[in-house]
Amino acid sequence: MDQSSGRALRPTRKVMPEEARRHNRALVLQTLYTTTGLSRADLARETGLTRVTVSDLIAELIVDGLVVEAGLSKRAGPGKPATALEFDANAFQIIGIDLSGHSLLRGALMTLDGRVVSRLDVPLRGRTGEDAMALVDEIVDELRLAATQPLLGVGIGSPGIVDLAGVVLTAPNLGWTDRPLEAEVARRSGLPVVVANDANVAALAEHSFGGASSDMMLLKIGRGVGAGLVVAGTAVYGGAFAAGEIGHVVVGDDGSECVCGKSGCLETRLAAPRLDAALAGASSPAEHDAILREAGRWVGIALAPIVGALNLSEVVLSGPVQLLDGPLVESLIDTLRARTMAQFHGSVKVRMTSLGDDIVLRGAAAMVLSRELGVS
Amino acid sequence: MDQSSGRALRPTRKVMPEEARRHNRALVLQTLYTTTGLSRADLARETGLTRVTVSDLIAELIVDGLVVEAGLSKRAGPGKPATALEFDANAFQIIGIDLSGHSLLRGALMTLDGRVVSRLDVPLRGRTGEDAMALVDEIVDELRLAATQPLLGVGIGSPGIVDLAGVVLTAPNLGWTDRPLEAEVARRSGLPVVVANDANVAALAEHSFGGASSDMMLLKIGRGVGAGLVVAGTAVYGGAFAAGEIGHVVVGDDGSECVCGKSGCLETRLAAPRLDAALAGASSPAEHDAILREAGRWVGIALAPIVGALNLSEVVLSGPVQLLDGPLVESLIDTLRARTMAQFHGSVKVRMTSLGDDIVLRGAAAMVLSRELGVS
Repeated sequence: MDQSSGRALRPTRKVMPEEARRHNRALVLQTLYTTTGLSRADLARETGLTRVTVSDLIAELIVDGLVVEAGLSKRAGPGKPATALEFDANAFQIIGIDLSGHSLLRGALMTLDGRVVSRLDVPLRGRTGEDAMALVDEIVDELRLAATQPLLGVGIGSPGIVDLAGVVLTAPNLGWTDRPLEAEVARRSGLPVVVANDANVAALAEHSFGGASSDMMLLKIGRGVGAGLVVAGTAVYGGAFAAGEIGHVVVGDDGSECVCGKSGCLETRLAAPRLDAALAGASSPAEHDAILREAGRWVGIALAPIVGALNLSEVVLSGPVQLLDGPLVESLIDTLRARTMAQFHGSVKVRMTSLGDDIVLRGAAAMVLSRELGVS
Repeated sequence: MDQSSGRALRPTRKVMPEEARRHNRALVLQTLYTTTGLSRADLARETGLTRVTVSDLIAELIVDGLVVEAGLSKRAGPGKPATALEFDANAFQIIGIDLSGHSLLRGALMTLDGRVVSRLDVPLRGRTGEDAMALVDEIVDELRLAATQPLLGVGIGSPGIVDLAGVVLTAPNLGWTDRPLEAEVARRSGLPVVVANDANVAALAEHSFGGASSDMMLLKIGRGVGAGLVVAGTAVYGGAFAAGEIGHVVVGDDGSECVCGKSGCLETRLAAPRLDAALAGASSPAEHDAILREAGRWVGIALAPIVGALNLSEVVLSGPVQLLDGPLVESLIDTLRARTMAQFHGSVKVRMTSLGDDIVLRGAAAMVLSRELGVS
């Protein structure tokens, strides 16, 4: 170990600058992550790296446990069969935390491909500030004890505005202002940590695991309403890290009063508590449907200019299925069709997420995987 | 000359891979483009390249005419004064063409910093298809004759949907469908050519020359209404190259009929001909102002969700100043304020472009400069 600090100065291996090495290692790992069972020769062909470089990197990845040899390659070719390699999704585990819940903070211990091994949900009970922070620490500590493999890191999706250093600039529900959440959890746990806004994390999950297109919006509906945007395959953060904060965009001039002081904000019709309350007052199935259709119409009015301006290919909804998946999404589709140009936007796909309630946890794992291993 | 084709295989200079060389050459040129009067030593310090590499690249750039020696460097330092270097904006000229006009196709011969040397405006007189194409060729040929320096290339801003290869997928005003404009002009002129949507070109001009921020929308109002978006410093094209096509997004449920078949499209209130017609019917200054304020309100309603979703820092308007700069832009600002959250979007800047009617021509020059020299 004592030679490691001098490695950059006195290379003992064949010369390869450290940055190029990291890049090539991530490239080999990404290739195996996407396509399993490749041989070293296959990898050299697919990556354009030399066989020597591939063998060298694979040796290192095998020592780290990230790659395993798994019998003979199934690919036909001349000569003797080669050894098949596999990315080992069980080599490390990831802790994912979803702080966006109304009443629960949710944690999960996951494999590298996002399979949940263990869960821990902690009731929030209105706790804010340091008390809420203590719950985050509790989740990290408990899931750490449950881990059966070394931990790759911790990913956290937080409500509110989060900057690129993982500082929660403002999260009213948790009573946090300028809280360096990423740095705090990293210091206390000693683990690599990455923190981002919950809707952005959900968009990343949909993009990584949900098969979403490269120009998409993830609309997340819960206690509030937020969105995560991916444009040309890249997450959008905005000039002041507030991209996707569309809950308080005014949609209707006839709307009811909002907690923010304005009237007619998208949240007044769409946030889950407001929708539940409105539905509780419905006196017939027809009135029930009309309330959901009207909410869907509001989303469509708000989304039409965004779909038009960005030429989005896909809008994915995440939130309570019983509220969203039915008259609401149908009305949203009708409204988008009516308010955008069919020639450009007629093919925009609108659907529920296939990742269910774990969408933020899955996205949190994807963030850690991407930052620590360069794999996505 | 006969050795050039083999240069990549049998290098005669000190080894520097061709791609790295191109990158370093653009870096040196970009640095001189931004800061004039640097010495070779200054350039080495600012770019991180070795003095030998800088001297080598500068020698090449001087031969090409892009850099000139201009007396002694003003920068103080030990030793004898060094030679100051300057980017020579007059070394080459660029042809820019703006096809977005209602009645005129506009061309200009420009220096490398976008100063107009010569102009040629050709009346469109309703011509479409091959006849419109002949006008483009005419502008290229005439401006080429007017050139007093070698030409770097041709940049064209076209209305309609333009893909990344410069194919105009659809431009109804010019009667063009799937026209490979970039390839056609390149073939006929033998010059490097780059074609993009006019509003995207205008957004690039504002970003390059107008001091616009990295998260901005350029709203271009003329015969129609279109937008160009820059997100995190990068132009947005959209899943089907139709980003920014917001003219036919429905804004008002009470709107008048649009040419597209829908009602209440943004264009029905905002396109210059519609605004002019409405204003012609105004019977008092107060009514005149009310028409402009109502148009501004419509823009604000359409833009609020976009500003919110992207957390834009700036919205820049381009079009007839007498229509836009006054009650219209004031009402737009009021509406944006009223319909977005002050905490995130209160600081969004809304202003007229400072580039006037030449905005597309300037952007066209910027595209050529960026593609041919890697300078922006």
